[in-house]
Amino acid sequence: MKRDVLIIGAGGVAQVVAHKCAQNNDVLGAIHIASRTLSKCESILASVRDKGAMKQDGTLKAHQVDAMDTAAVAQLIRDTGAQIVINVGSAFVNAYVLDACIETGAAYIDTAIHEDPDKICETPPWYSNYEWKKRDLCAQKGVTAILGAGFDPGVVNAFARFAIDQMDSVKSIDIVDINAGDHGKYFATNFDPEINFREFTGTVYYWEDQQWKEKAMFESGRDWDLPVVGKQRAYQSGHDEVHSLAVNYPDADVRFWMGFGDHYINVFTVLKNLGLLSEQPVKTAEGLEVVPLKLVKAVLPDPASLAPGYTGKTCIGDLVKGVKDGEEVELFVYNVADHAEAYKEVGSQGISYTAGVPPVAAALLVASGAWDAGTMKNVEELDPKPFFTQLDRLGLPTRVKDARGDHPWNA
Amino acid sequence: MKRDVLIIGAGGVAQVVAHKCAQNNDVLGAIHIASRTLSKCESILASVRDKGAMKQDGTLKAHQVDAMDTAAVAQLIRDTGAQIVINVGSAFVNAYVLDACIETGAAYIDTAIHEDPDKICETPPWYSNYEWKKRDLCAQKGVTAILGAGFDPGVVNAFARFAIDQMDSVKSIDIVDINAGDHGKYFATNFDPEINFREFTGTVYYWEDQQWKEKAMFESGRDWDLPVVGKQRAYQSGHDEVHSLAVNYPDADVRFWMGFGDHYINVFTVLKNLGLLSEQPVKTAEGLEVVPLKLVKAVLPDPASLAPGYTGKTCIGDLVKGVKDGEEVELFVYNVADHAEAYKEVGSQGISYTAGVPPVAAALLVASGAWDAGTMKNVEELDPKPFFTQLDRLGLPTRVKDARGDHPWNA
Repeated sequence: MKRDVLIIGAGGVAQVVAHKCAQNNDVLGAIHIASRTLSKCESILASVRDKGAMKQDGTLKAHQVDAMDTAAVAQLIRDTGAQIVINVGSAFVNAYVLDACIETGAAYIDTAIHEDPDKICETPPWYSNYEWKKRDLCAQKGVTAILGAGFDPGVVNAFARFAIDQMDSVKSIDIVDINAGDHGKYFATNFDPEINFREFTGTVYYWEDQQWKEKAMFESGRDWDLPVVGKQRAYQSGHDEVHSLAVNYPDADVRFWMGFGDHYINVFTVLKNLGLLSEQPVKTAEGLEVVPLKLVKAVLPDPASLAPGYTGKTCIGDLVKGVKDGEEVELFVYNVADHAEAYKEVGSQGISYTAGVPPVAAALLVASGAWDAGTMKNVEELDPKPFFTQLDRLGLPTRVKDARGDHPWNA
Repeated sequence: MKRDVLIIGAGGVAQVVAHKCAQNNDVLGAIHIASRTLSKCESILASVRDKGAMKQDGTLKAHQVDAMDTAAVAQLIRDTGAQIVINVGSAFVNAYVLDACIETGAAYIDTAIHEDPDKICETPPWYSNYEWKKRDLCAQKGVTAILGAGFDPGVVNAFARFAIDQMDSVKSIDIVDINAGDHGKYFATNFDPEINFREFTGTVYYWEDQQWKEKAMFESGRDWDLPVVGKQRAYQSGHDEVHSLAVNYPDADVRFWMGFGDHYINVFTVLKNLGLLSEQPVKTAEGLEVVPLKLVKAVLPDPASLAPGYTGKTCIGDLVKGVKDGEEVELFVYNVADHAEAYKEVGSQGISYTAGVPPVAAALLVASGAWDAGTMKNVEELDPKPFFTQLDRLGLPTRVKDARGDHPWNA
């Protein structure tokens, strides 16, 4: 039984992970958190203590580490004795942290695909570029590595698997991510602006008719009528989970839809057209080399700072269509989360909450053995039911809308 | 008779000034051009030679100078023997170049108010902050200094004076600047973005009811129906000429209106609200200190690069209202310029053309003695008629719309 946890990263998602680990430190054990900036780790631990989140007495410790230094991460894993690493650092560090886990035998859990800072939007499927190259090595060394175990990717992969398990064949998976919340700022991104904008500046890859297809961002929009948040416009976007679901369910069309308001699109469009979202440095008249996207990140609100005033709800779900007993069937499997409730519980906004709770659920399943696969897995390759049970308990209940109506997944 | 000219600056306006000086080098003499970057001066001189602009054989020479170094500029004036300095460098250098002229006795002509890079939008009247402090010194040393002799400020000041000279009393001066041209780019500013945006990020100062009043940018918009360019929306903006006209005609309301399309306003609003037009440095996550406005300047098209594809016309004029023989009268004094014609003649777009031709007209009047005032003057303090005569000849004809109809100023 693996128990002691090392959290990599100290942003808004890491804060949620730390709180949720603390609330479950009877199952998990010692909690370590490490990032480039020690003070950010310490302030997360202070918040855990302030809320009295620790279920029982135990270790809670901050560390400084350069997560791009595999040897340093491996050393930290050995020094702390951590058996589970929850990596919620920048997507730029993932490959290095994964290598440290393979080296030390610790279980690895992340919430996003590795990204090379210099490359935007690589060729699909994205998991092939870095993670899946290490799959055989994980199997060979018996290392559990659960890829993309946040909400999307993560829970939405489990939603897909859950729906498909009830069908004879699947025809399409449409993942819809709506944030109907209001942070009250002129403009802000809900997570690291650098990662957020990179997601939308590249080509939109999707899987249709058993092949990869491409669209431009905001080229394809569609109105959705969803539980709780109501009618919302979403646009086809590139997203990690499309790249594993398409490989695991090659007969299904796989698309991702992200909700955007007109204001977001306008600001994004202006910045993009002016070249301010570029990751390529430009030189000012004074000779200073600046990466525009990094300056944009610097002027935008820190996503963590949005939490106190954030109101409203998110709805993220999968519309899965298929055939069962010769009949066409469709299920919408979804979760609704509330920004203000998340802040009250763990001091974070809803987007961080939905991203940070699932990897802790996954860690609990690794600890219990249910998901301790001894190899590399995407979430849809694992049994979704114990995952939903943990998520229900941790504050992210799964519901289903189908021919029977709108009901909990297990009702 | 003063003849030899030193041009300070090597941007789009300097290019027009150099061409126009060359076309008139029978009245003016040697032509020197100096800026921080020698190669920019040299490419302007190459353009003058390419177009065969020199009216007669003569000196045409490029120099490197740091225009913020008064001693270096003074030395260059002495070395070249220049008797007239046309300063079309950045507004940040004006005070230093003026000092060099006062030191050497050369006549000084500029097209904008001095600006301190660290201060945005100082208290009105702006000329009091730097230039007018040197007025007594100019008078004492017999140095001619003509302030703000571009189009606006400059020609529009002469428009006001011309209209007011035909009235018993003046009630209001509304200056309207419409660029109905199309550069074909997603977004660009027509002159240095840094100066352009600074103009619109500060408070809008205007003179009404014999006092300074304030508005926010884009707070006050008005539709104008103008000759040639037709119906256009313009917004009350801060502008240099308001700050001398209000002092010289304290009984008149003095307002400036700049035409903006919805697209410009949208881009400007997004950039401003995000903090990207700030002149205060911000620090990126990597620790790099960047002035956002300087990065925005770096990503925008170089204003000089707009010239080849620029089409359409500008209309800049003064609506002056007053009383004559007990009757209310109003005159609209204006000029219409054409982008493509400007490019054909001097390789620049219309905005540079309208800004660059007037200081050459002023230099010709200094050379002829008509405007060689031997002290510091704003343009409305000088006789507008010889100025209009030169402008007619140089390609910027003045027209008047009044009770008689629409006619040349001298018809």
